[in-house]
This record gives sequence, C-alpha cells and structure tokens, in this order.
Amino acid sequence: MRLSQYFIPVLKENPKEAQIVSHRLMLRAGMIQQSSAGIYTWLPLGLKVLSKIEQIVREEQTASGAHEIKMPTIQPAELWQESGRYEDYGLEMLRVKDRHDRDMLYGPTNEEQVTDICRTHLKSYKSLPLNLYHIQWKFRDEVRPRYGVMRGREFLMKDAYSFDLSKDDARKAYNRMFVSYLKTFKRLDLTAIPMEADTGPIGGDLSHEFIILADTGESGVFFHKDWEQTNLVADISYDEDLQSVVDRFTSLYAKTDETHDEATCPVAKDKLLKRRGIEVGHIFYFGTKYSQKMGATVSGPNGEMKTLHMGSYGIGVSRLVGAVIEAKHDDKGIVWPASISPFDAGIVNLKPGHAGTDSITDQLYQDAKTEGFDILLDDSGDSAGAKLASMDLIGLPWQAIAGPRSVDKGVVEIKNRKTGASEEVTIKEASARLLAVLSG
Amino acid sequence: MRLSQYFIPVLKENPKEAQIVSHRLMLRAGMIQQSSAGIYTWLPLGLKVLSKIEQIVREEQTASGAHEIKMPTIQPAELWQESGRYEDYGLEMLRVKDRHDRDMLYGPTNEEQVTDICRTHLKSYKSLPLNLYHIQWKFRDEVRPRYGVMRGREFLMKDAYSFDLSKDDARKAYNRMFVSYLKTFKRLDLTAIPMEADTGPIGGDLSHEFIILADTGESGVFFHKDWEQTNLVADISYDEDLQSVVDRFTSLYAKTDETHDEATCPVAKDKLLKRRGIEVGHIFYFGTKYSQKMGATVSGPNGEMKTLHMGSYGIGVSRLVGAVIEAKHDDKGIVWPASISPFDAGIVNLKPGHAGTDSITDQLYQDAKTEGFDILLDDSGDSAGAKLASMDLIGLPWQAIAGPRSVDKGVVEIKNRKTGASEEVTIKEASARLLAVLSG
Repeated sequence: MRLSQYFIPVLKENPKEAQIVSHRLMLRAGMIQQSSAGIYTWLPLGLKVLSKIEQIVREEQTASGAHEIKMPTIQPAELWQESGRYEDYGLEMLRVKDRHDRDMLYGPTNEEQVTDICRTHLKSYKSLPLNLYHIQWKFRDEVRPRYGVMRGREFLMKDAYSFDLSKDDARKAYNRMFVSYLKTFKRLDLTAIPMEADTGPIGGDLSHEFIILADTGESGVFFHKDWEQTNLVADISYDEDLQSVVDRFTSLYAKTDETHDEATCPVAKDKLLKRRGIEVGHIFYFGTKYSQKMGATVSGPNGEMKTLHMGSYGIGVSRLVGAVIEAKHDDKGIVWPASISPFDAGIVNLKPGHAGTDSITDQLYQDAKTEGFDILLDDSGDSAGAKLASMDLIGLPWQAIAGPRSVDKGVVEIKNRKTGASEEVTIKEASARLLAVLSG
Repeated sequence: MRLSQYFIPVLKENPKEAQIVSHRLMLRAGMIQQSSAGIYTWLPLGLKVLSKIEQIVREEQTASGAHEIKMPTIQPAELWQESGRYEDYGLEMLRVKDRHDRDMLYGPTNEEQVTDICRTHLKSYKSLPLNLYHIQWKFRDEVRPRYGVMRGREFLMKDAYSFDLSKDDARKAYNRMFVSYLKTFKRLDLTAIPMEADTGPIGGDLSHEFIILADTGESGVFFHKDWEQTNLVADISYDEDLQSVVDRFTSLYAKTDETHDEATCPVAKDKLLKRRGIEVGHIFYFGTKYSQKMGATVSGPNGEMKTLHMGSYGIGVSRLVGAVIEAKHDDKGIVWPASISPFDAGIVNLKPGHAGTDSITDQLYQDAKTEGFDILLDDSGDSAGAKLASMDLIGLPWQAIAGPRSVDKGVVEIKNRKTGASEEVTIKEASARLLAVLSG
C-alpha cells in the first residue's frame, strides 16, 4: 500500500484523554478514533491488527474442534428473564425497547442465546460433545469507560460455549479450551498466565483467567515466582492427555486478587510475586446453571433425559489489540509481533521525486509484493524526520529506508524495529536481503 | 468436516413461518435460527456462506481502491442531530438511552459517522480521493420483518463512502463503485441489473440500484428486454475509461417502480419487460448534503476551503445469502455457486460401519482435504434416503456417494448437484476423478 493513497491519520501530539500507553499509541498511530465514550471506530491500520488477531483466535478455536456461528447483537429480554439474569445484570446491560415496545438488549454475553439454540436442536447425547463459538460485538455500559479499547463499551469478543452430557465430559471440553488459549496467546507472542479466578456473574465452580502482566493492568495478581521461568509452550496435541497438561500449567500458584487470600496462600512470602495484570481470556465451567433453568436436555444412552453440562470461554479480541501494545512498545512507539503486524514491513522513500530513491523504493515494494508480502510504502510529502518517526510509531517489524544520501552511496538501510539494529545493503542486494529478513 | 462431529440441524418439515423459498430452505438446511422477529443466529453452514460473500465483497472493494474500516454499531444521537436526520428517520431507527441518559442509536447507516471521521482528519485536497468502507451489522426496526434474512431487522451490510474535491471527481468514485459492483455480483454468479433509482432518505441526484430478478422480489422493475441478452462482464480494468463502461451498462432502459413513469418511458411496449426484483446493492452520489451541514471541508489547491463531495455505496451482505438462494435452487433444495458454497463437495457414506464404504469415503475425504478442498463427509447414522435428500437440500456443487451396493460393484457415484448428471467411477479412479471435477 502506498501511504499517499492510504489513510493513516497520525497525530503529532499526545492526546490528552489517553491515560495509558496503548490508548495513546493507538490514537497517535491513527488506529482508532473515538465515536463516543468507550466506543471507537477502527481505522484502516487498527482494523488490520484487529482482523489478524480475530483470525488467529478463529483458527485456534476451529483447531480445537469448536464450530463458528454468529449470534445477533440484539437479544430478546425473555431469554434473560428465563435465566434470571435480566434484573441481576444491572446498569451495565444496554436495554432497548423496539417499535412494538418489546424489551430487547444489546448482548453483553450469550449464555442464554446459545442455550436456546441447543435446547431447540439437540435431542440426543449422540450430538455431543458440541462447542459453538462466535466472534461478535458486545456492549457493556461501563460506568466509566477508559483505557481506550481496553475497557470500552462496545467491544469485540470471542465467546465459546461447550455442551456435554456429564461433568467429566465438560471437564474435557474445558481442558481443550484451556490448551487452545495457550496456543492462541503464544501465536500473539504474549505470556498469558492462567490464574484461578472468581466465577462472578457467570457462575460455576471452575474458572481460570488468562492474564498478561502489565503495570497498567486493572487486576492485582499473585503468583509463584517460578512462573517467570515457565515456558507456556504451545505445541500440545489435542490427542495428548490434556488433564495432565492443564495440571502442569496450574500446579504453580497464580490467583487474582479476587481469589487470593494471604492467610491461606501456600507460597512462602519470598517466592510470591505481586504484580498487576490484564485479563485477556476467561474460561468457566458452570455445569447446569443455565441448562436447568432453560430446559436444555438431551436423551441419554438409556433413553433418560439428561440436563446439559456447560462451560463458556471468552477472549477479548478488541482488548487484545491494546493489551499487546501494553506488552510490546518502547519510547518510540509500538513494536508489533510479526504475526499481527498491520504490514510485514515499511519502506521509506525519504525524498519522493528523487529519481534514485523513487527507483529503489518502487523496486523493493514491487519485489516484496510479488512474493506475497504486505508492504507499506511511505511515498508521502512529509519531512524525512516525520517519516522516520511515524514508521517507528506504527511499529512494523522491518523497515527499508532510502534517501538521496544513501542512494548516492549505492546503499539502502534495512532496520529491525524491535532491536533497532540496522544494516546498509547495496541497492543491488537490497531486495534479496529484505525478502530474506521478511521470510525470517 | 465429518457431519457426525458437526452441527447442521436439518429440518424434515417445512417451517410454517417461511413465506418464500430462500427463508424456507435456509431454515430447513440448518443455516439460520430465528432469535426474535427479523433477527437471526447464523449457524455453521449459514455463517460459512455469509463469510464467503463478505470476503468477495471485501476483496472487490479493496481492489477498487477503497480502504476498510470498522465503525461501531452504537452511534451518538448528536451526529444525526447535526445532519437533521435524527427526527426524520422515524420508528425504523432503534433508539437507546445509555446509563447516563445520553441518546444513542443502533446505526441503520453511517453517513454521519464517516463524515465526522473525515472532517476530523482530512485537512487538504492532497488526501483525496478517499473511499472508506466497512462491513458491519446494522439495525432497522422494520414494522413487519419478513422473508428471513432478506428483510431482517439486524443485518450485515457493506457500506462505502467516497470523499472528493468536486462533482467530477465524485463521479469518478461513483463509476469505480459501479464497476466494482458488476465484478462483485459476477463472482457470486448473479445477474444484477443496474437500474436508475430514487435516492430516498439518503438524498442526492444520482443513484443506481443493482437488482436481481426474482418472482419473490419486493420491487417492481421495468427494463428493456435486451437486458436478457446482456452479459454483465466483469473483466473491466480500473484503468479503462470507466465513464464509457458505466454509459454502456446504463444505455438500456432499466428503472424501479419508484422512478419508472409509463408516460415518459422511451421504450416501446413490446420491448419493455415488467418483472419483480431484489435489490442487492444501491449506490448514491449526494454531493455536499452531509459535508455542508457537518462542516467537512479541506483546503483546495489555492488554499481556499472546499466542501467535500460525497457518495455512499451499499451492498446487503446478509440479504445476498437469501437472494442467491432465490436465484439458485430447485425443488430438491439449494444449488450453490462454487464461489460461495459452504463446502466444495459432500461425500456420502450410505452405510457407516460397512468396511467398504468406510474405506472409500475416508480415502476420498482425506485425498480431497490434502489437496486443500473443504469437504463435508456424511458419516452420520441417518437412513440412506435421508442422507441423499439432505445433501441435495444443502446444495454443495458436487457429491460423491458410496453405498454397499456400489462398493460391491467396485464403483462410486459422482454427481453434479446443478445438472443432476451422475457418473459411476471405479473405486481406484474415484479420488482422481473427484479432484478433477473439483478443480473445474
């Protein structure tokens, strides 16, 4: 993409409303624009990242055996009256009356809706196990939205729902999701520690939050210091004994401040770390809490009616964009992991109109495009200094920089955004070298 | 995908609530489930089709030079008060009050929101032309939702918005979208006739609806009978003179009943056809209608402030799923075009547990998967008759069928869903033959 034909409205000044670094950097890099409090438009650069994260989440959900559906955003109040949550949910639920004065709501989550689907269509235990997920916009009317997309009101969430015949089977579904979360966050280059958590308004008796450490996190977290040396490996096969995998990753103490109790904590004080963290995923087993109230049953192997055992599994897809930035930035801007970078590389033409810089940057651009890479070519009329600052700000993993001076020397600069390491390569070798670093 | 592990809740009976064939077939094929009036959940099979159409629309929008963004579903009322449409829109607009009693709405369209983005960030004519599109859920509170996803309340729409310095430039943007619509509908294997249309509540003085012919269509349409012989070719380059392309495709008379006037129609009665049609796309040029009221200006080449000229361009993505079915079905069920079929082929094992049928269907399934095809293998315990009927109902382009009798004969049946033509191929040649027909 040529920047002159694209739309990245970079801000030169730090926006006053942004209290944390991810919010500030997303606004400055032209990724988002606020529409109203806690509600954002995703501009082209931001949407590219959001879509890449969404796609990784989708692939890992599908690989775990879950099936994608799409439930609507607007739900009928009746379903929530059946479960008893309509009144409980309070002011965070955005309630709507339609033109016929029917009570509706903008879904903050979908346990009721998906239970309704399954009670309609599932008749026999032979249809189980079943895990349905969707990636859809949700609304929670936070009293004080803040931190940009990290605690917005309208947000994109992946929520999966498992249906099983028994608690034992449901535990298997829970374990599959646990593993799929390890794999998902690994692909995002994040260290997300699974922590025992409170089940809150979802209910249930088994729950883990996946938390990445960040000073700006909202949750206080307590964990054994050996977590810092733990490799949250992702090359686990779904054919393995997943219970032992989950046991391994939950053997070290890790709790949020909602469940941590100093009096009962088994970890010696000198081995216990207290930090702040950002919740990026949350999984629950809640048994028959919804299926019982809503009559979601199937016939069992002996013909008897059995109430479905359920779990739900969320990942904050839009929140992850902010969370990744909290974890991956420096004083110059964002440092994207390659897997979700909006472009694979940026090419900077420091002086468009100069025959030499035009020629080499066009060549690099075309060669990388031909090889299937997605490249941002800065061919704009901005000053050289502004271009270099912007390219660092938006944080693509690799940069190729050509100006009149380097071209006169017969070289191009290739720079790694993360390490800052830069090398000069001859114009003749520049394409091959850029392709080599892009191919990792 | 093995059907035994999937979720396609096929209905044996015709659902009473469905008045038209696409609604009936989508419910029967387990593609959607109603949540409340005019609001649907997309089940796995339905979502696959929806996502494929969405992706084709996205690719063609991007190819035309438009940039994807994502505006939120919930908008502040203030923007619509600025444009004057907040009161005008009437009961179709879903109005919401948030917890702080602020007036919000679920966007039925996004002219105001995108104008707000551009007035914030566009400063100079040098940023033009710009076309921003998004694919997002919309809500229109239809008084009488019907026809399934064809006239739902919550629906997925692609809407693009062009920004230009002058009417002439805006016409160029309009023409690009016109051509991109021809390309999009061609990829969906649809004949969508561009018809002069009323601009309605969007406003403006230039507008075309893209309409596919169907007896169940809501609009009456009048057009020259030579349209029936017109090939809506899609191999147009954006480097061509697009005005002449558009002129060519609008030279034959074609109007909706909103703009057709018998008294002034230039077409002789014996050459004028009257049919019914389904609107699948609508494009508008409306000049400075919104930019004027909302103060969206840029500095021109001579430093003077110029008000932006705008157009908007919609495609009903979720409606298209129904519209395609209206155009592509027979008395057995849906007949998907290959480009948007939920799977490339279905393999039917008429008797799971039979060593011969298990072996050949597994072999076909694995071989096709290895070659990158997405296959549905019916390995369920249903009766042979039910399986064959379901496979016809869900309408995948190709079927491979193996039962004990055919396997004893040493053959497999390969069937084309559209033509019904079927051939027996030897078990040894079956994989090669299936791959050959799938590769077209």
